Amino acid sequence: MERAIDAQLDELKKHILMMGGHVEKALHEVILALLKKEEHRFQDVHKIEDQINEDQVRVDNFCIQILAKRSPVAKDLRMIMSIIKINTDLERMGDQAANIAFTAQDYLKRSPVPQAQILVKMSEVVRKMVKESLDSFVRGDVELAKKILLMDDEVDTNKNQVFNDLTEHMKKNSQDIEASLDVILMARNLERLGDHATNIAEDVIYAITGQDIRHGGIYDR
Amino acid sequence: MERAIDAQLDELKKHILMMGGHVEKALHEVILALLKKEEHRFQDVHKIEDQINEDQVRVDNFCIQILAKRSPVAKDLRMIMSIIKINTDLERMGDQAANIAFTAQDYLKRSPVPQAQILVKMSEVVRKMVKESLDSFVRGDVELAKKILLMDDEVDTNKNQVFNDLTEHMKKNSQDIEASLDVILMARNLERLGDHATNIAEDVIYAITGQDIRHGGIYDR
Repeated sequence: MERAIDAQLDELKKHILMMGGHVEKALHEVILALLKKEEHRFQDVHKIEDQINEDQVRVDNFCIQILAKRSPVAKDLRMIMSIIKINTDLERMGDQAANIAFTAQDYLKRSPVPQAQILVKMSEVVRKMVKESLDSFVRGDVELAKKILLMDDEVDTNKNQVFNDLTEHMKKNSQDIEASLDVILMARNLERLGDHATNIAEDVIYAITGQDIRHGGIYDR
Repeated sequence: MERAIDAQLDELKKHILMMGGHVEKALHEVILALLKKEEHRFQDVHKIEDQINEDQVRVDNFCIQILAKRSPVAKDLRMIMSIIKINTDLERMGDQAANIAFTAQDYLKRSPVPQAQILVKMSEVVRKMVKESLDSFVRGDVELAKKILLMDDEVDTNKNQVFNDLTEHMKKNSQDIEASLDVILMARNLERLGDHATNIAEDVIYAITGQDIRHGGIYDR
């Protein structure tokens, strides 16, 4: 027999998936805007971010309702705790996408630097991380969640490459300093998006196994 | 008559205050290390960050216990929700302090740039924000929480100044590009620390008034 709380948790999961879809879309739009120099897409990113912010408030309210009316315990309570945290991460991911849009808008006014291409590659990995972290959440797939942690290493490596390449580039091309800084900041935003997806993967592992793998250690709770 | 949950919420608040003290201390140590070129202080920062990470797990577990055993509602439930979020922000503040320590360690190997001085000023404002956001939390002082939001504007202004000054500096002094980038990244970390303190202030306003002022709007819930 299905419990009433199961239907509500399923509803919550749907909200979280929808938010994740919005984050992916924002990231897709901002990178398209950069690639195709289509400024109108920046507005879309900011509209999507507004939507994500509204989603966040709705999910928090829904969690509070369930906590107040159903007094969940054990696995259900861990699931709600994870949703509260995932919700925060998704909202901050929306912020990061919006930050990229602001920087990208400046960047399009300048002469481009070739190193910006790596942002496209980074954004593809990060979008995959967002999608798969939420897939792992919905399916309760701990193995998939663990893969996200490895993908994050790839993002970090790419970011370090952007930093190193552009530091050298700036030394020889002082006219490209603003554009280089823009790309460095966007790479950093993408890195942070990857970190948030990693947080989600860690929350999934906690929700399913009760194991807290944050901070490198295993804390049972 | 005092309710059992009041004693537990007081205990939780004490934990949160202690974590806030650790964040302040980490920030103090990292800036002292920069100012006095005392490398040994970086180790202290990383030790404090480990402590903050342990605190975070402890606070989360305590929240889960209270939710499971006391089934709080209304104001108590809002308080727990806020503590769960504040706890996450404090942990991420610890991460930012550690990031500053890593960058500062690189920076100390290079010729200093005069613009680094503004980091000291920024860190003082941010430390005040951390302290006062938690004071507002413990005292339930909504007016103080609102002041934090204004202090954040000051941090953002300082960060923009660092960015602009160093962009110009790099154009004329290509030998200072690495050091300038380090200072830009540390300014950005401080800005993010300020953002987290702002999140805490917003959570306090929500916990006390039930008003959600995130995202610029007022959502009653």
